Amino acid sequence: MAEKRHVWRLAKRPVGDIQDSDLKYHEEPVPALQDGQFLVQVGYLSLDPTNRIWMSDMEQYMPPVGLGDPMRGGIVGRVVESRKPGVEAGTLVAGLGEWASHMVSDGTGLSPFPEVPGISIAQAFGTFGGVGPTAYFGLLDIGQPKPGETLVVSAAAGGVGQIVGQIGKIRGCKVIGIAGGPDKCRFITEELGFDHAIDYKSEDVGQALDRLAPEGVDINFEQVGGPIMSAVVSRMKLFGRIPLCGLISSYNATTPQEEPGRWTLILMRRLMIRGFIVTDFADRFPESFQALGGWMLEGKLKTRQDVRPGLDKALDYVKLLYSGGNFGKLLVEVSKI
Amino acid sequence: MAEKRHVWRLAKRPVGDIQDSDLKYHEEPVPALQDGQFLVQVGYLSLDPTNRIWMSDMEQYMPPVGLGDPMRGGIVGRVVESRKPGVEAGTLVAGLGEWASHMVSDGTGLSPFPEVPGISIAQAFGTFGGVGPTAYFGLLDIGQPKPGETLVVSAAAGGVGQIVGQIGKIRGCKVIGIAGGPDKCRFITEELGFDHAIDYKSEDVGQALDRLAPEGVDINFEQVGGPIMSAVVSRMKLFGRIPLCGLISSYNATTPQEEPGRWTLILMRRLMIRGFIVTDFADRFPESFQALGGWMLEGKLKTRQDVRPGLDKALDYVKLLYSGGNFGKLLVEVSKI
Repeated sequence: MAEKRHVWRLAKRPVGDIQDSDLKYHEEPVPALQDGQFLVQVGYLSLDPTNRIWMSDMEQYMPPVGLGDPMRGGIVGRVVESRKPGVEAGTLVAGLGEWASHMVSDGTGLSPFPEVPGISIAQAFGTFGGVGPTAYFGLLDIGQPKPGETLVVSAAAGGVGQIVGQIGKIRGCKVIGIAGGPDKCRFITEELGFDHAIDYKSEDVGQALDRLAPEGVDINFEQVGGPIMSAVVSRMKLFGRIPLCGLISSYNATTPQEEPGRWTLILMRRLMIRGFIVTDFADRFPESFQALGGWMLEGKLKTRQDVRPGLDKALDYVKLLYSGGNFGKLLVEVSKI
Repeated sequence: MAEKRHVWRLAKRPVGDIQDSDLKYHEEPVPALQDGQFLVQVGYLSLDPTNRIWMSDMEQYMPPVGLGDPMRGGIVGRVVESRKPGVEAGTLVAGLGEWASHMVSDGTGLSPFPEVPGISIAQAFGTFGGVGPTAYFGLLDIGQPKPGETLVVSAAAGGVGQIVGQIGKIRGCKVIGIAGGPDKCRFITEELGFDHAIDYKSEDVGQALDRLAPEGVDINFEQVGGPIMSAVVSRMKLFGRIPLCGLISSYNATTPQEEPGRWTLILMRRLMIRGFIVTDFADRFPESFQALGGWMLEGKLKTRQDVRPGLDKALDYVKLLYSGGNFGKLLVEVSKI
């Protein structure tokens, strides 16, 4: 059993962009296991836009991480020692954990994670461990796509966006992805089969939409916020739907920034907007795993992970999310498990 | 058969508040009936907030009224002459018509209107002719009220609001109405059974909500917009719903006015907002008539009309909607039918 662990603890609440002094990397003794606890060796740490929310004390959907506490994150790891009945050493578990090399858990927030032959743990975790259910329920339950409808997804080459667009194609939609740079745009059209890509770094999103979707937008799967969101929302069709999944462009803002209210537009075009978090659908996760897994086996769903080595560099890696520097679902490889 | 009719025609598109010169009152010959047409003597004209939208060329859900055309309005009237097979003289009809004493129709937009013993035409029209289905579908389909939840409705003593609040009580909600002045506030609590009233003319709506609903708001049936809306929206609970029915405070604005976007709030609290127009539910109107009629017979639903005499004064009357001067569903008595 490990005697030491590395862990990132929240030292200060970030103001604006995350600074190097906001989190501190510690080496600590691993606490002794109590009855009912087990020790997990973390294999991969998921870095997600919501990490920045948890660091802050803004209004949010879970308690923020306390100052001095280990930074919260999605993890997959292997149980290396257990004093909890029913949890065997060697078991793979995933869920909400810590930015750490090892963590002691009583099982809260963690579930067994299946090992699927032919799919690496990184790919499985980077597909099913949060982003897959987010895309599945946000698009299908809230977006309610119908064949022939026009779907726009922002952050389209990211962990959630790539899956949203492919499910949209499976459901017969015309899919337009918004992403940054020619590589990501080529990836979502040529490798994932999106109909069109808009490179927000080199073209005006509104003008591109006018050209690519003169019919208007039925579904806007929103992850970004800011002027890109407004460009899409102002082009929504009658009875359009907006699954509101994230607003990453605003998370680092030092003063509250909101795009203008669109109340009149929502009324006149009878739009539906609904904010959601993946855990709202927790009791239906198995349904999404089954569907996503089936599509992967059929070759209809591909996912790309951006795996970066070294827990000690997690703070540098997480910043990539807010600059668009990752390409695919961002994971930190913490250890070989 | 009448040889002359009176009719209001749109002369100019209003800028800001409706001016006396925006509509003109004409005396005209009644056009000769063609085959397939019938002549309606209008009994009551419904004046509704949306009239101001139709006068403008803002983005809206129907074509605006053309300059020089008869002003559009909800009407109930009696067929006095018919050259349309299946439509008998003497029949009561209701639907979308004209601000006129008589109108020639081919039936488009009109339906037979039942005469119910013990219920006056004004009350029946002022309950079932638009406002009832609006309240019914907006609250039940979009608002999804559950027993014990807190429902806030603005313009609570108006045509739609009074019905929304009473359906909320029938469904076991705690109901708070926002209305202007002590008479309206007393009416909705003492006569209609709302739990609480907030007089927006004499108290701060946000402070009143903090006192009356410290638990927060599950459903905001929105009709008004502006700062009153923002006060309610900022107090929505997790998973709250906002049926967006109207934004009357903005209809007379000369420059676009929108309350701030609430995107972050919608995301974090997982709110659902949906704009709607009553005609979105047209194929289900009979369901609403049956439910509303049943509740009236059981004494669980009361409605108040504000009936004003004289088509020639319709222009003065419609302005009451935007100053809060009406008390109950605003109708013009055009003729005794």
